Amino acid sequence: MVELIRKKYPFQIQPSTVDFRLKITLSAMTDILLTTAGMNADDNGFGTRKLKQHNTSWVLLRFAMEMKRFPEQYEHITVETWIEEINRLNTTRNFCIRDNEDNIIGYAVSIWVMIDRDSRKPRDLMTLDDFAEFACGDTVPIEKPRKLKSVEGEMFDSFRAKYTHIDFNRHVNTMRYIEWIVNYFDLEYYKQKNIQRFEINFIHELVFGDEVCIFATETEKDDYSFEIRCKEQVSCKAKIVF
Amino acid sequence: MVELIRKKYPFQIQPSTVDFRLKITLSAMTDILLTTAGMNADDNGFGTRKLKQHNTSWVLLRFAMEMKRFPEQYEHITVETWIEEINRLNTTRNFCIRDNEDNIIGYAVSIWVMIDRDSRKPRDLMTLDDFAEFACGDTVPIEKPRKLKSVEGEMFDSFRAKYTHIDFNRHVNTMRYIEWIVNYFDLEYYKQKNIQRFEINFIHELVFGDEVCIFATETEKDDYSFEIRCKEQVSCKAKIVF
Repeated sequence: MVELIRKKYPFQIQPSTVDFRLKITLSAMTDILLTTAGMNADDNGFGTRKLKQHNTSWVLLRFAMEMKRFPEQYEHITVETWIEEINRLNTTRNFCIRDNEDNIIGYAVSIWVMIDRDSRKPRDLMTLDDFAEFACGDTVPIEKPRKLKSVEGEMFDSFRAKYTHIDFNRHVNTMRYIEWIVNYFDLEYYKQKNIQRFEINFIHELVFGDEVCIFATETEKDDYSFEIRCKEQVSCKAKIVF
Repeated sequence: MVELIRKKYPFQIQPSTVDFRLKITLSAMTDILLTTAGMNADDNGFGTRKLKQHNTSWVLLRFAMEMKRFPEQYEHITVETWIEEINRLNTTRNFCIRDNEDNIIGYAVSIWVMIDRDSRKPRDLMTLDDFAEFACGDTVPIEKPRKLKSVEGEMFDSFRAKYTHIDFNRHVNTMRYIEWIVNYFDLEYYKQKNIQRFEINFIHELVFGDEVCIFATETEKDDYSFEIRCKEQVSCKAKIVF
């Protein structure tokens, strides 16, 4: 079992996942990490298919990523992932991203809850057999995702949640939130700057037909805060540091 | 060289590519096919990286796909792809999609032009060394993508082309057009119906900041026509038959 606790997954960066600079987008990079989370959970016997038998599912609560550089089109990378800790209410999974020459190019930390698929309420993680054994305690050298503050920002986009935004959990998919946020900046900005740290808190899920409003503000130089709201309810808070 | 002319590429359907029914979305299925097109072009020595040396790039002109069924989350599929024919102005690439038991679940046909990266004008395909040798003449048993008619429809969505819509060719990516189109239908509709044939014509590329307007109309029962326009210019026409 020990060899599964920390495992590496290889990927090649596909053309459909890169931006105009030929670098992978923030959402596609996050997608790769969450894909390895799913694979590793499956490998260890607590993937979404297993959880579905108990009418539960994994939901991402908080996520932080720091990238020295974003890999480019056709580049080969590996993502190593493992569980750092497990509590009753949530579990912390870490990621280390390496390039083809084994240089570390980024780290990420994710915090997950297990929800009941009907009530959408969190379930006690200690009810998962032997799950606690998978926590190896290994940390990564970046700040964990914090509880982000609310910020007064300006609304820069608004629309209804549509078919392609909704995932297997029947709510708006994590990647869509990230795409909506990074679209605050224009191509000129991305020509000059690179994202160094990204951080997101998921607070209230969005479902099909919800009226989504996205707010942004520059809190410090090259440091932006975002809020996604539906009516008066905050759905998600995020932060990007360039 | 012959073994490269028709080649099979394996894929597993990832959770981030499925909809609320756990079936792969139309855009993600198309993305897989276009990824194999890129891989096969690379394997044969005429991929986008090679073309870039001559300041040219592949651009998709027309595409048609018919699916008996859309594969589900975690399913393993293979995509076989090959070039049917090559003319001065365009080339036809076909696809055959099989499930894990080797049953054919879909076919697709794509028509490509090679453009000059600066002038954005088509270039003569006969200038590609030995390219004509790769045309094997093998067809697929679906109707090729036709030149679609203009239709009067109702505008159902409108927004500006943003950062995540733009790809390595510096125009709006094919997948984004498809996502915008399939969002015409709500979840209730997708619970009852499955896409049987999808067809798209790309007429005028969209770039960052363009004001995108999307029109739809039901031309016959379960047969929908779409047009994406920027100002008075038609950017793309599409058709979905359920």
